[in-house]
Amino acid sequence: MKKMNTTPISGTMELLPSEQAIFNNIKERIARAYHLHGFRAIEPPTIDRNEILFAKAGGDTEKQIYRVVKTDEAIEDSDQSLRFDHTVPLARYVVEHESFLSFPFRVTQIGKNFRGERAQKGRYREFYQCDVDVVGREELPIAYDAEVIATLYDALSSFLKPQMLIRISNRKILSGLIQMLDLSEKSAAIFSIIDHAEKVPPVKSQQFLMEEIGDDDEVDFFVEFMSASGTDVEVRAVLEAILHEIKEYVPAEIQASERFVAGEKLLMAGLSELCEVYELLKRRGLGENIVCDMLIVRGLDYYTGTIFETVLPEYKSIGSVCSGGRYENLCEFYSDQRFPGVGGSIGLSRLFYVLSENGLLPEVSPLLDYAIIPMSLNEYEAAFRLARKLMDEGRAVDVILTDKRLGDKLTFATKVARAGVVLGEREVSEGKARAKDFASGNESEIELG
Amino acid sequence: MKKMNTTPISGTMELLPSEQAIFNNIKERIARAYHLHGFRAIEPPTIDRNEILFAKAGGDTEKQIYRVVKTDEAIEDSDQSLRFDHTVPLARYVVEHESFLSFPFRVTQIGKNFRGERAQKGRYREFYQCDVDVVGREELPIAYDAEVIATLYDALSSFLKPQMLIRISNRKILSGLIQMLDLSEKSAAIFSIIDHAEKVPPVKSQQFLMEEIGDDDEVDFFVEFMSASGTDVEVRAVLEAILHEIKEYVPAEIQASERFVAGEKLLMAGLSELCEVYELLKRRGLGENIVCDMLIVRGLDYYTGTIFETVLPEYKSIGSVCSGGRYENLCEFYSDQRFPGVGGSIGLSRLFYVLSENGLLPEVSPLLDYAIIPMSLNEYEAAFRLARKLMDEGRAVDVILTDKRLGDKLTFATKVARAGVVLGEREVSEGKARAKDFASGNESEIELG
Repeated sequence: MKKMNTTPISGTMELLPSEQAIFNNIKERIARAYHLHGFRAIEPPTIDRNEILFAKAGGDTEKQIYRVVKTDEAIEDSDQSLRFDHTVPLARYVVEHESFLSFPFRVTQIGKNFRGERAQKGRYREFYQCDVDVVGREELPIAYDAEVIATLYDALSSFLKPQMLIRISNRKILSGLIQMLDLSEKSAAIFSIIDHAEKVPPVKSQQFLMEEIGDDDEVDFFVEFMSASGTDVEVRAVLEAILHEIKEYVPAEIQASERFVAGEKLLMAGLSELCEVYELLKRRGLGENIVCDMLIVRGLDYYTGTIFETVLPEYKSIGSVCSGGRYENLCEFYSDQRFPGVGGSIGLSRLFYVLSENGLLPEVSPLLDYAIIPMSLNEYEAAFRLARKLMDEGRAVDVILTDKRLGDKLTFATKVARAGVVLGEREVSEGKARAKDFASGNESEIELG
Repeated sequence: MKKMNTTPISGTMELLPSEQAIFNNIKERIARAYHLHGFRAIEPPTIDRNEILFAKAGGDTEKQIYRVVKTDEAIEDSDQSLRFDHTVPLARYVVEHESFLSFPFRVTQIGKNFRGERAQKGRYREFYQCDVDVVGREELPIAYDAEVIATLYDALSSFLKPQMLIRISNRKILSGLIQMLDLSEKSAAIFSIIDHAEKVPPVKSQQFLMEEIGDDDEVDFFVEFMSASGTDVEVRAVLEAILHEIKEYVPAEIQASERFVAGEKLLMAGLSELCEVYELLKRRGLGENIVCDMLIVRGLDYYTGTIFETVLPEYKSIGSVCSGGRYENLCEFYSDQRFPGVGGSIGLSRLFYVLSENGLLPEVSPLLDYAIIPMSLNEYEAAFRLARKLMDEGRAVDVILTDKRLGDKLTFATKVARAGVVLGEREVSEGKARAKDFASGNESEIELG
């Protein structure tokens, strides 16, 4: 009988050993892909100063931050909280240690973040994120945007079987468009409407835009913008058509204004970056897996250039399995020096949940390689010599030391291991035993060593 | 210029990438040793209910618990805290999932725990612990105590070069002795004095005991007890001598009392268990590395039988690098069912610190295997084909994509990688290039693939 409620708190993931083995296997595959791509692991503390964390948070995130308070402290005395993402600690880390780092700094963080979110399926309050970032000092070529995306693709494809589609855009395009149309004050609302466009019927988005903008022609530009999707060439064609229409619509004297010119320049810069990232990924053999898509805006995030999301077209309900983008200045809150960065993250806890729900988890045997069953204490040394030999070959071994009957020990062995070796007097004196594969029933001889 | 204090909060460990590589390497070696010994990884949440955490904590630990509070919550509304060890979550986990587990359950947890300790060198407020435990249902043979110790020894020796000495005792011995002398009310004080005996001059411990016990003869029994150290045979001899003296000292009618008889039985049971653990470890080839030592009592912990600590005799100042023991009933606060357990923990954060201070960290190269330097965008595809080929061979590669001059790229390459490959027009057309080892200056030909 339980004396207490022992369920883990809601919004946390607690796995059985067999599930944990799969989770850890995926985590290791991701870490290995990141390592092979030259990313160095760092691990800033989980707890950080509020001053650091709240500098970037804002909005809903701020409310979700978990503050930490020692039991004998008043909450007012605590100025510390749990990190809610890897980007803020990275920004602090780069400023703190920049003289010891080589730039462009390829860096990875795999660990838990914390947010006091409303508990719902697949949303966790403590969750693993697996981030890669490249941070430049003063400058960072756009080629690194493609590098981060390709790295994340490699990491995901090391365990994900369904086809992946990486949807790419560049925030400068929409920002430029908004600026050209003198709608900067409504920028946040427009970003948000487009960000949610896939969750509502098209006519709804159009209606929301109309409510914000109040001009049919201008709304049409955005509706056309939202339809732009395909190759770099296809998207360029749509955007150039929009530009052409805007120039027919906007009076010449406004077109000559600094604001309009800067807006167009920004839009063209975004388009050019988008095409470059697209081209570089195509050259790396990812042409079939990428699409330029203006519906990707990453509403709440602080990206300033490239943005991307990865979806599984055969499993639409899963949504994005990995996303990221470029920061003009990663460390703007903490330093006067400019550190442009580009990064992305695999939300492992949520991904594990949705893959599990869709039967897409990789198969990882929960079983050890061998269970060794010494008949009595007399076979103890032989059992451990054999275990040592097997472990030296990289096999995982459980030596069963219970006082139970042989039948019970064998039952236990089949639950924990793929194969079993019983060691009695005869086996020890002969220096060899039989290893039985429990699945096939096959036996093979094994030297005791 | 920094705009804000970007140092990590005091009492946390934040490493540079080269140091983190060593830390992670050690962590992986420990995890691998645990895996080979048949221990399954689990990962209960970091945040747990106060009811669960405070059930066991008590004393100083309780004051050190970090409560977590959402920013928009009052502290009174929060009933959650950060775990302070792995044992409490394990106990909850076992009760919650017991019907899905096979017992004896070999289990490992490697992760961060949190305590609001006073910051001091080598003490961290968030710290890695690497635990192994074997949990039985209703029963668990003493052989598993040796198994846990041997597993921890293997894990440590996978990266620790100095000789290790495992000091073993059994709490039943001292508990029995105290009970025989009718000093149970002073038990906590006596345990504490012996626990601290190595930190004060011997005469001090004797004085403290005298203050508590107030009887010269009885104090002498404890002083003699504290001197017992050596092989199983040697310690047995000292303890039997003490028993003999006690029987000369205690009146016959008291010797016949239930309390005295039970005390002696407890002492003898502890001695017998200690000798069995010692014998089993000797049979596993660890005879040179173990010593029975009555000064080991693990004062503040809740062990009930075997207890152990591991020290490096050549580096006395380092103290214990790993410790643990047996719980009569791991889950006593959460379930009526009995789950005896034995476990131990490597305090990785502290260990990393002291090894670093003593120049004992293993050497792990912070460098990637290759840096590939395409001369221009024209060599981009060739660079990534080569990178892919090297990564498929398990090599970590940084493809340098900056727009800098070749000299600057080479300088960067020497900082991040062991070897560099420059790819220009000629290399691409010839389908091969030269890989230069930066340390030796040697060059070797490499097919571009």
